[in-house]
Amino acid sequence: MVTSIILINTDRNKVNEVAEQLQSITGVSEVYSVSGKYDLVAIIRVRSNDDLADLVTKKMRVLDGITKTETMLAFQAYSRHDLEAMFNVGM
Amino acid sequence: MVTSIILINTDRNKVNEVAEQLQSITGVSEVYSVSGKYDLVAIIRVRSNDDLADLVTKKMRVLDGITKTETMLAFQAYSRHDLEAMFNVGM
Amino acid sequence: MVTSIILINTDRNKVNEVAEQLQSITGVSEVYSVSGKYDLVAIIRVRSNDDLADLVTKKMRVLDGITKTETMLAFQAYSRHDLEAMFNVGM
Amino acid sequence: MVTSIILINTDRNKVNEVAEQLQSITGVSEVYSVSGKYDLVAIIRVRSNDDLADLVTKKMRVLDGITKTETMLAFQAYSRHDLEAMFNVGM
Amino acid sequence: MVTSIILINTDRNKVNEVAEQLQSITGVSEVYSVSGKYDLVAIIRVRSNDDLADLVTKKMRVLDGITKTETMLAFQAYSRHDLEAMFNVGM
Amino acid sequence: MVTSIILINTDRNKVNEVAEQLQSITGVSEVYSVSGKYDLVAIIRVRSNDDLADLVTKKMRVLDGITKTETMLAFQAYSRHDLEAMFNVGM
Amino acid sequence: MVTSIILINTDRNKVNEVAEQLQSITGVSEVYSVSGKYDLVAIIRVRSNDDLADLVTKKMRVLDGITKTETMLAFQAYSRHDLEAMFNVGM
Amino acid sequence: MVTSIILINTDRNKVNEVAEQLQSITGVSEVYSVSGKYDLVAIIRVRSNDDLADLVTKKMRVLDGITKTETMLAFQAYSRHDLEAMFNVGM
Amino acid sequence: MVTSIILINTDRNKVNEVAEQLQSITGVSEVYSVSGKYDLVAIIRVRSNDDLADLVTKKMRVLDGITKTETMLAFQAYSRHDLEAMFNVGM
Amino acid sequence: MVTSIILINTDRNKVNEVAEQLQSITGVSEVYSVSGKYDLVAIIRVRSNDDLADLVTKKMRVLDGITKTETMLAFQAYSRHDLEAMFNVGM
Repeated sequence: MVTSIILINTDRNKVNEVAEQLQSITGVSEVYSVSGKYDLVAIIRVRSNDDLADLVTKKMRVLDGITKTETMLAFQAYSRHDLEAMFNVGM
Repeated sequence: MVTSIILINTDRNKVNEVAEQLQSITGVSEVYSVSGKYDLVAIIRVRSNDDLADLVTKKMRVLDGITKTETMLAFQAYSRHDLEAMFNVGM
Repeated sequence: MVTSIILINTDRNKVNEVAEQLQSITGVSEVYSVSGKYDLVAIIRVRSNDDLADLVTKKMRVLDGITKTETMLAFQAYSRHDLEAMFNVGM
Repeated sequence: MVTSIILINTDRNKVNEVAEQLQSITGVSEVYSVSGKYDLVAIIRVRSNDDLADLVTKKMRVLDGITKTETMLAFQAYSRHDLEAMFNVGM
Repeated sequence: MVTSIILINTDRNKVNEVAEQLQSITGVSEVYSVSGKYDLVAIIRVRSNDDLADLVTKKMRVLDGITKTETMLAFQAYSRHDLEAMFNVGM
Repeated sequence: MVTSIILINTDRNKVNEVAEQLQSITGVSEVYSVSGKYDLVAIIRVRSNDDLADLVTKKMRVLDGITKTETMLAFQAYSRHDLEAMFNVGM
Repeated sequence: MVTSIILINTDRNKVNEVAEQLQSITGVSEVYSVSGKYDLVAIIRVRSNDDLADLVTKKMRVLDGITKTETMLAFQAYSRHDLEAMFNVGM
Repeated sequence: MVTSIILINTDRNKVNEVAEQLQSITGVSEVYSVSGKYDLVAIIRVRSNDDLADLVTKKMRVLDGITKTETMLAFQAYSRHDLEAMFNVGM
Repeated sequence: MVTSIILINTDRNKVNEVAEQLQSITGVSEVYSVSGKYDLVAIIRVRSNDDLADLVTKKMRVLDGITKTETMLAFQAYSRHDLEAMFNVGM
Repeated sequence: MVTSIILINTDRNKVNEVAEQLQSITGVSEVYSVSGKYDLVAIIRVRSNDDLADLVTKKMRVLDGITKTETMLAFQAYSRHDLEAMFNVGM
C-alpha cells in the first residue's frame, strides 16, 4: 500500500466543496478540514506510485477551487493498527 | 472522536526513533516518515480536546529529538470509511 | 468551553467592516483590529469543536473581505479570571 | 484600557511553565497554549502604553524559556461584551 | 506623545504619490522612500492610541496605491533630542 | 543630510541595553523599542554615505546583543517639518 | 557538458502539458513531475553557458503555463555513471 | 524504477565531502554541487519505495555534514532518453 | 561615486526587454540576467544619493515588466581594480 | 568571461574582514558591503565554469566568518561598457 499525505489550500469559500469532491476519488482515504495555515489534509492510500501519480497530477489537478498543494510520500508507517488490513478492505 | 494532524521536524538522525516513541503514546493512531520539508506526520485520534491538549503540550513535549511541531485540529472528516468505528475499537 | 484565537488578514479597506460582521456571529467573543502583520484577531468561545468547525468553515468563510485566516485551538487557558463564568453568561 | 495580543514561541518543554509565569504578571489577562505555529497567545489588558512597554520590554523579557515574541497593539475592540467593565474589576 | 513606525509597500509606480498623500495627514511626522524590501517608512507622532487607530485603520486604509502595511508601536524612545518638544510644536 | 532607518533584532533581554548604547553613537538620531517582529528601529541622520557606512559596518557591528539588522537608505524625505534644520542643530 | 537543474512551478492544471513542451526542447535531458512544493524538475545538459542562457531566458520563458522557475548551475557532478558519455550521444 | 530528487544543504565546508559519500551509496545515481540556495542536488534511482525509504531515512540520515534535506518523489519522467535502460544497467 | 546593487524580478517573458531598457538609463553600469530566485541584477554607479533616488524611485519605477526590486546601497567597495577610474570615464 | 554575482551573509563583526579576504582571491572582481538583508555582494569574473566552481565550492568555502551564500550565474550582460575588455586586462 502506498500512502501519501497532501497539504491543501483552497479558495476561501470552497473548503467543504473541495473536500467532498476529493473524498469521492478512488484512493482518497480521508480528507480533513483543519485549523492552521492549510485548509485541508488528504490521506491517500493506493496500490502503486503510478496510482499516486495519476491521482495527484491528473485527477486532483482538475478539481476547481484548489489553489495550492504539497504532496508528501509516506516512507514508513508506524501504528498499533494493522492499517494495510483496515484500509485494504475498503480501498 | 477528536482528530488532529501534527507536522513534525526532528533532529536529522532521530526520525525513526521519534516515530517509534510517538506511536506508543495512547491516542497516536498513526505516524508516517515523509518526503518533503517535514520529517514526520502524526495522526491523533482521541476522545476530547483535553486528551489532545495533554498529548500535545505534555506527552509529546518531553520526547527527545523533536525540534518543531505544528498541530492542526481536524474540524470535519470526509471519508467513505467509518473512521469512528474503525479506530474506536483499537483506541 | 472551547476557545480559539484566529489571526485574520482582510482587504485593505475592509478591516472595520469585517470586524463588525465577525463580532455579530454567535460564538465570536471579541475582535480586535491590531498592529503588525495581521489585520484582526478574533477570540472565539463556543461549547464544542463542532460549533467551532461550523463557525470557521462555514459562517466565517462566506464573509466578504477576508483574504486569509489562521485558526489556533486553545489547549489550555491560564488566567486569574474565571473566564468560563465571565463569558458563559454572555455566550 | 490598552489591550495587546502577544504571539509567543517557547523552548519545547517550557510551554506550561512559561504560561504559568506569564499569567502571574499584573496586566496579563489570559494566556492560552495553542495549536499551530505559535506556542502561546497572551492577552494583555493594562491602563497605558507605558504599562504595556514595561510589561513587554522588561517583565516578559526576563522570563526564562521564551524564544520569540510578536506583540500586537489592539487599535479597537469589537464585542457584545462590555470588556472594559468585565476586566476592569479584575485588573 | 504616541509614536509609531509603519513599514509600507506600494504599487510600483505610486511610491512618490502615496508619500505625498501620507505626509499631508495630521499626525504623520515624516515619510521616507527607502531602499530594501519596503517602499516607504512613515513616522507617526500623535497624542493617543485612538488617534493612532484612527490614522491607521481609517485614514491610511483609504489611500490608493498602498498594497501592504506593518505598523509598529514605539514602546520607548531613546534620543539625545527632546523629541516631545521638537515635534509637539509642529504637530 | 543622509537619513537611514535600521530595523534591529536583539538578544531577548538586551533590548534596552542595546538601545542605550546605540543612541549614544554620533549620528544616531532616535532609537525606538517597538512592537511587532523587530525589537528596535534606529533613525540615523549623518552628513555623508561614508559616515553611514562607518556607523553601520563598524560602530554598530561591535555592539554586543544585536543579532540581526536591516539597513534602509532614505532616498527622499516628505515632511511638514524642516527636518534638515531641526536635526542639523542637534547633530 | 554544462548541467543545470531547474525547479519549476506551473499553473495547477498545466503540469503535464508544460513537461511535454519542455522535454521537446533541445538540451532538456529529463523532466520530472514531483511531490513537494515544486511541480516539475528539469535536468538540462548543454554544451555551453550560452546554450543554457538561450534555453532559460528565451526558449523556456515563452512556454505558457510556467509561473516560477529557479535555475541552479551544476558546478560539479559526482556519479558512478559516465554521464558525459551517456548523455553526449543522445544530446 | 523509482526516481527521487533530493535538495540538500550541508555545513559550509563539507559540500564536496558529503557529495563524495552520497554518490557511493547504492541507488544514488548522480550528485551535483549547485549554485543558488541549495548546496547539492542528488538524483536517486532505485527499484522500490522501500529502497527509497531505506536510503532517505537511514543511509542518508547518518551522513555527517548534512544540515537539511527536502526529498521529492518523481511521479512521471518525460525524456527523449530511455532512462530506464540507461540507468538500469548501471544500478 | 555612489554604487548600488539592485535585485530585480520581472514578468516571465520580459527579462531581456527590461534588461535592455534598464541599461540605457544613465547611471546603470551593468545589468545581468541571472540564475536563481531573481531575474536580473543591476549595478548602478552614480555621483550622488539624489541621482540614485531619482533613478530608483522615478526612472526605474515607470519601466514596464518589473514586478519587484530590492535596492542595496554599497557602503564600501573592495577591489584590485580602480573602479572609480574605470567607470568614471564611461559614466 | 564567466560572470557570477554572490549574495553573502557573514558573522556580525566579520563583514570587513571577509570582504578583504574575498577580494584577494583571483577571480573576485569586486566586493561590496551593502545595506539590506545581505551583508556583502561579490562580483566574480573568471574564464570558465570550472574556475567558478573551484572558487565557490573550495576557495570561498574555507573562509572563516561566512554564514550563508547564494551564487547566481550571469547568463547575459547588458552594458554600455566593454566589460570583457575592462576586466580582462586586470583579471
